[in-house]
Amino acid sequence: MPKNRRILLKNRPTGLPSTSDFELVEGPVPEPGEGEVLTRTLFLSLDPYMRGRMSAAKSYAKPVELGEVMAGGTVGEVVASRHESFAPGDIVVGQGGWQDYAVLPGALLRKLDPRLAPVSTALGILGMPGMTAYVGLLDIGRPKPGETVVVSAASGAVGSVVGQIAKIHGCRVVGVAGGKAKTDYVVEELGFDAAVDHRSPDLPDALAAACPKGVDVYFENVGGATQKAVWPLLNDFARVVVCGLIAHYNDPTPPPGPPMLDVLRKRLAVQGFIVSDRSHRQADFLRDVGAWLQAGKLKYREDVVVGLEKAPEAFIGLLQGKNFGKLVVKVA
Amino acid sequence: MPKNRRILLKNRPTGLPSTSDFELVEGPVPEPGEGEVLTRTLFLSLDPYMRGRMSAAKSYAKPVELGEVMAGGTVGEVVASRHESFAPGDIVVGQGGWQDYAVLPGALLRKLDPRLAPVSTALGILGMPGMTAYVGLLDIGRPKPGETVVVSAASGAVGSVVGQIAKIHGCRVVGVAGGKAKTDYVVEELGFDAAVDHRSPDLPDALAAACPKGVDVYFENVGGATQKAVWPLLNDFARVVVCGLIAHYNDPTPPPGPPMLDVLRKRLAVQGFIVSDRSHRQADFLRDVGAWLQAGKLKYREDVVVGLEKAPEAFIGLLQGKNFGKLVVKVA
Repeated sequence: MPKNRRILLKNRPTGLPSTSDFELVEGPVPEPGEGEVLTRTLFLSLDPYMRGRMSAAKSYAKPVELGEVMAGGTVGEVVASRHESFAPGDIVVGQGGWQDYAVLPGALLRKLDPRLAPVSTALGILGMPGMTAYVGLLDIGRPKPGETVVVSAASGAVGSVVGQIAKIHGCRVVGVAGGKAKTDYVVEELGFDAAVDHRSPDLPDALAAACPKGVDVYFENVGGATQKAVWPLLNDFARVVVCGLIAHYNDPTPPPGPPMLDVLRKRLAVQGFIVSDRSHRQADFLRDVGAWLQAGKLKYREDVVVGLEKAPEAFIGLLQGKNFGKLVVKVA
Repeated sequence: MPKNRRILLKNRPTGLPSTSDFELVEGPVPEPGEGEVLTRTLFLSLDPYMRGRMSAAKSYAKPVELGEVMAGGTVGEVVASRHESFAPGDIVVGQGGWQDYAVLPGALLRKLDPRLAPVSTALGILGMPGMTAYVGLLDIGRPKPGETVVVSAASGAVGSVVGQIAKIHGCRVVGVAGGKAKTDYVVEELGFDAAVDHRSPDLPDALAAACPKGVDVYFENVGGATQKAVWPLLNDFARVVVCGLIAHYNDPTPPPGPPMLDVLRKRLAVQGFIVSDRSHRQADFLRDVGAWLQAGKLKYREDVVVGLEKAPEAFIGLLQGKNFGKLVVKVA
């Protein structure tokens, strides 16, 4: 009989999580109830937002309770179904969590066509991170041709798509990423106009040199030193798309933000958003990004870790910028 | 022969300006050239933005040069005209500056009808401050009926209009102002639902008590302690309209802002604006605010100082919150 391995939240971390904050347990494979589907996890997505779920603090999503399985997006194969839309063998995307098997309401699953794209992309460029990039850039950043767009975490699951869509829209695109391999990648592979290493001691000067006409859209994934370097370069009427602040997720107290006087004097628009508030845009996203992907206008890179048991360590590495591309765990 | 008294910028202040930063000089009354109009100043508007013009720092408007007349909005009577649209005796609003007489291009003047409203209102509720309130609240704050709107500097030229328009739109309105006379005024005279004294040591608790459902729109005129007290009360999807930051105008270095993590988690929209960017809304503003004023739905209060020579002292008092209502100088 197969077993179900599950990774539970054991402790609420202070600062950077450690592997001891997670616990791997084994149990029986669950059975689906009426309207439910049993899936075997093929791929588990690891994403920065999960750090927030490990804390008890009020945020946009409920925290994972201690002793509960860690939440996460998954691509799975249907093993048993009590929902009329799904049959064994179907490949589906949903919120299966950090485990081998999950029972999920059929209503919350979306079926994938494995002939259109590798199914793991439903966790990346054709999934939540891709849609985050699409709605954040287009609906909040509102880039115009000729404008300069800066994106942090530029080689990551979201940033890489932001920059490429901005290029499609005729913008000058500057990426900020950690280390030469990543900055080279976004320029040479993804076609960004320039890239700057956030670890460089001359980050402010290097970024200013890469943005001779200032910055019109800043797509914020990290905060910290990158935000400080971008801020003085913002043009009048610039838009700051606050998508993520990975540099602050492990801070016990959130640091202050940039001066409001700049918001006033430059008439900045600084806006936070969460992709799940914008599900009305999903059809547009799948149509546009699907078409760009088919046409070869978008590239993506996955960082695949093999084995569910590796998820905690890989997730901790993600918070430190150790991944290169969209981080997924190949579970089966 | 009449003389023209002019108040010049003598020194660029550090911190709060003093009267010695200004200089009153007398000279001949100027003559209008082709297309220009000579006006005698009746009322001079004093507004917080003028502090920015006294500094050399880059901002949205050019600084006043040392030795130049201080800039400012005025209502004047036409004395001589070389522009076909204006004749002696006409009452006009324009940018006459801190002086008895001004020569202005006719193209930049707007004629007033003294039968419709007292002409000084063209510097207040029917002028720049009123339009600032109108476009800031409606276009950036986007209040919905039932939402809670907090406005700082609530008894001032902008804040008093913001709160009353928010009431017309069916919102719960809470004002923040300095001292009992002002907090009483906005509740008893202007019809706000509640008001809190920003000098009170229990400002955060008092504000929380006045906003039992949190804050959906914060119209920011001041910054400082008021901003700190409002920030934790902001609801998800709240809009922060950054109109003014009078508490920071005298700071040599701008203080940091509130945490960006809140912008992200609560999906806040924080936006700065300047009324002069939004002149396309002037006809709407004059139509709506004019009608509300005629219908008795809007009240206003002027703080009138008599004598051009009093302008420096009155302006310094404005930066300290000593005025009560729209501050204007009766020049003639």
